[in-house]
Amino acid sequence: MNKKMIIYILGKMLGVEGALLLIPAVVSLIYGEKTGISFLAVAAVLGVIYLVLGRRKPKNNRIYGKEGFAVVGLAWVLWSLFGALPFVISGAVPNYVDAFFETVSGFTTTGSTILQEIESLPRGINFWRCFTHWIGGMGVLVFVMMVTSLDDESAMPLMRAEVPGPEADKLVPKARSTARILYQMYFALTAVEVVLLMFGGMNLYDALVHSFSTAGTGGFSNRNSSVAFYDSAYIDGVITVFMILFGINFNLYFLLLLKNWKSALKNEELRAYLGIIAAAIAIITVNILNIYENVFHAFRYAAFQVASVITTTGFYTADYELWPELSKVVLLTVMFIGACAGSTGGGIKVCRFVILCKSIRQEIRKILHPNVVTMVKINGKKVNNDTMKGINTFFAAYIFILVISVLIVSIDNFDFATSFSGVLTTINNVGPGISKVGPVENFHMFSPLSKLVFCFDMLVGRLEIFPYLLLLSPDLWRRRF
Amino acid sequence: MNKKMIIYILGKMLGVEGALLLIPAVVSLIYGEKTGISFLAVAAVLGVIYLVLGRRKPKNNRIYGKEGFAVVGLAWVLWSLFGALPFVISGAVPNYVDAFFETVSGFTTTGSTILQEIESLPRGINFWRCFTHWIGGMGVLVFVMMVTSLDDESAMPLMRAEVPGPEADKLVPKARSTARILYQMYFALTAVEVVLLMFGGMNLYDALVHSFSTAGTGGFSNRNSSVAFYDSAYIDGVITVFMILFGINFNLYFLLLLKNWKSALKNEELRAYLGIIAAAIAIITVNILNIYENVFHAFRYAAFQVASVITTTGFYTADYELWPELSKVVLLTVMFIGACAGSTGGGIKVCRFVILCKSIRQEIRKILHPNVVTMVKINGKKVNNDTMKGINTFFAAYIFILVISVLIVSIDNFDFATSFSGVLTTINNVGPGISKVGPVENFHMFSPLSKLVFCFDMLVGRLEIFPYLLLLSPDLWRRRF
Repeated sequence: MNKKMIIYILGKMLGVEGALLLIPAVVSLIYGEKTGISFLAVAAVLGVIYLVLGRRKPKNNRIYGKEGFAVVGLAWVLWSLFGALPFVISGAVPNYVDAFFETVSGFTTTGSTILQEIESLPRGINFWRCFTHWIGGMGVLVFVMMVTSLDDESAMPLMRAEVPGPEADKLVPKARSTARILYQMYFALTAVEVVLLMFGGMNLYDALVHSFSTAGTGGFSNRNSSVAFYDSAYIDGVITVFMILFGINFNLYFLLLLKNWKSALKNEELRAYLGIIAAAIAIITVNILNIYENVFHAFRYAAFQVASVITTTGFYTADYELWPELSKVVLLTVMFIGACAGSTGGGIKVCRFVILCKSIRQEIRKILHPNVVTMVKINGKKVNNDTMKGINTFFAAYIFILVISVLIVSIDNFDFATSFSGVLTTINNVGPGISKVGPVENFHMFSPLSKLVFCFDMLVGRLEIFPYLLLLSPDLWRRRF
Repeated sequence: MNKKMIIYILGKMLGVEGALLLIPAVVSLIYGEKTGISFLAVAAVLGVIYLVLGRRKPKNNRIYGKEGFAVVGLAWVLWSLFGALPFVISGAVPNYVDAFFETVSGFTTTGSTILQEIESLPRGINFWRCFTHWIGGMGVLVFVMMVTSLDDESAMPLMRAEVPGPEADKLVPKARSTARILYQMYFALTAVEVVLLMFGGMNLYDALVHSFSTAGTGGFSNRNSSVAFYDSAYIDGVITVFMILFGINFNLYFLLLLKNWKSALKNEELRAYLGIIAAAIAIITVNILNIYENVFHAFRYAAFQVASVITTTGFYTADYELWPELSKVVLLTVMFIGACAGSTGGGIKVCRFVILCKSIRQEIRKILHPNVVTMVKINGKKVNNDTMKGINTFFAAYIFILVISVLIVSIDNFDFATSFSGVLTTINNVGPGISKVGPVENFHMFSPLSKLVFCFDMLVGRLEIFPYLLLLSPDLWRRRF
């Protein structure tokens, strides 16, 4: 373990967080809010940490896979620990565990909240909440890589540990250039959404805040009733489309930039993703038809909620807690599936499910024709055994963490639907669940222990499990490795 | 596909079912019940089917893996279809779907019931209900192998498809001898339990019926309030111990017969199984302490319920629906895990979990030390890649079927805990779930569609998924294979 290098990178990253905190400070200034001071204070502390730890690069600056996982795992915890401070200092969220929960929920783009009243918060604070989604969306580290100066061989292991999905491809030969291209696309899509929302009558502040949340597939809003506040079919439509867009693998947008429409549209994960969305919307529309006045309304609310849950955003325009059980279970199912790999969305990822389905079919074929050599292919390419094994292990580890988390959370003695969907929604970075954590409810009533379990689940879900299992493994910290 | 051979074996097996039906007929006769006629009528029909299909062995009598899976899959459905008839003819369960549910639940040793009133049933009918558990316990086919005369090479694929767990070992070189030894042990353990229960004051009929249910890890009782009826610490204790014993891999008993204590006790699955039971009992005992007058009582009820659920038996002595959520989730968790491979119990099986845990640890090691060759071992033997892959695919297919079943069942609009635990308890062949399918409740209120989904889940769970996925695969039925 190259510990010096880990400390150096972490120092750099905290410096970046300090710089980012200046943006909500400016917002506070514009609105003449005193809370600006809390952002400046934390930014100052982070600046000092950067000057001490992040300025001098160690001589041995090579890092490998395990350092990558360790840095990523620690970085997200540290960012959340410091990012929570402005909430506490400003008095917006007096309890530190609650503030930590809120910040983890922000950076991991989950969008679960412990706040019962949002609209009375200072604008700077609300800006910071939603801004954490936007930062978390493409990953703290990809961001940092772009603005700092790691050499390419060191950057790639970080990116592998960071980018969601079973495999991280470089779009172009250099990791930093890849990061830059990803960020430009992210920026552009966000900007388009801001403009379209303003066309629908939102003011700049609301449009920015909701675009940050959509882009990060987070789900925080500055309105108590989320997007339902605007009660506009146009705004619902724009956000539905953008949620779905941000749930698509960003590599496909890169293919579009290269005008390679054919391979983009032939992508099996994309087809499965759109197919699942269509099926879920169809089932729910029919199922809730008798609740709404006409098919268009039913479709509008079904589409928004499905897009919000499968992309793990977590906005809502309807209280689906009042829908029939089938609709709720459909939402839990797409929650379980999640968005595409390489997108800002969370969850197990569509592409893992496609591969798992294919491997089940392959196993059946193997029993029928024991002597035929079969293999699992995706997008025409063979899925190699290591990827296959990684997916299977991921899936098993995911289920284990889910079960253990539900066990601990159930100590609080809420009903099964609450405990189960609370864990499912946090580990998949969605936001709301069903029953007592339904869309119009929140997480304030849980014990601090449960809140910390949810924080763990959010982090584990965002980083796809292994970085934190590694951090908890004693092997990592032994000197001899 | 050797279809002639499949029909021949199925004909033989239905003949065996006809012979078995004579036993409840005799019980009816002893108690002077008219329902005896319904058993005799069905037995006569099955006798005719046997004479037509099961007497002449086809010339080409070789069968392979795929025929094995097809025979096993069809056999369980046919046995249940015919086994349900006496319930309908006698008028005990007038609705055929309900009778089919009850019979599938019997043969698959699930123990879920649609009956609201059991004690008023004729004794012959109740005997048949519990007897199906006993038959189902060791598997219809192992039974048939023992009493009929397949040659050894044809018997092994059947046994592989039939015996629960990732690998079926032959204990001795010949499959039929293996089956005979297994059955002798099964018989002996059942007989000991009958005697011990009669010591506790049960009459012969009750002792037989409850021993059948324990041995098959089924859960049907002839009492409306299950084992709670006897309210005896001695009877609770005996049944707790025997449930745990029947959840152990029968190969280990064979090792004990050979006086090979050492390898039996070193078995990793056994240790994990006992460890999980101990942990679950400890957690629940502490959690329910304030409900019962003293630790002994809390322990007694915790131990019985844990043993009942992890071995997938499904008896109860306490309404755990009234326990705190943590206890309920602990029960759901051990329900999910299930008993040992090669036992009469259902579920995913402890040994699969042990191997999955080890593979997660191996994956972590691989990230830390990319150049070290690692492997997963169980009981000192390397788990080969195909077994590993089989387990992973099994696990994935299990979760898929679970999710799809919950989706369909939720159309009935019962709460999430009911739909989810209903599917979990049937796919794992346990019996009761939580909420509206809790221990003192039953499955009568579901729609016929849901009942058929539960039947499918019970069958799929008992035969460990693949036989039915194969039967549903069009490949199996194409001529050219």
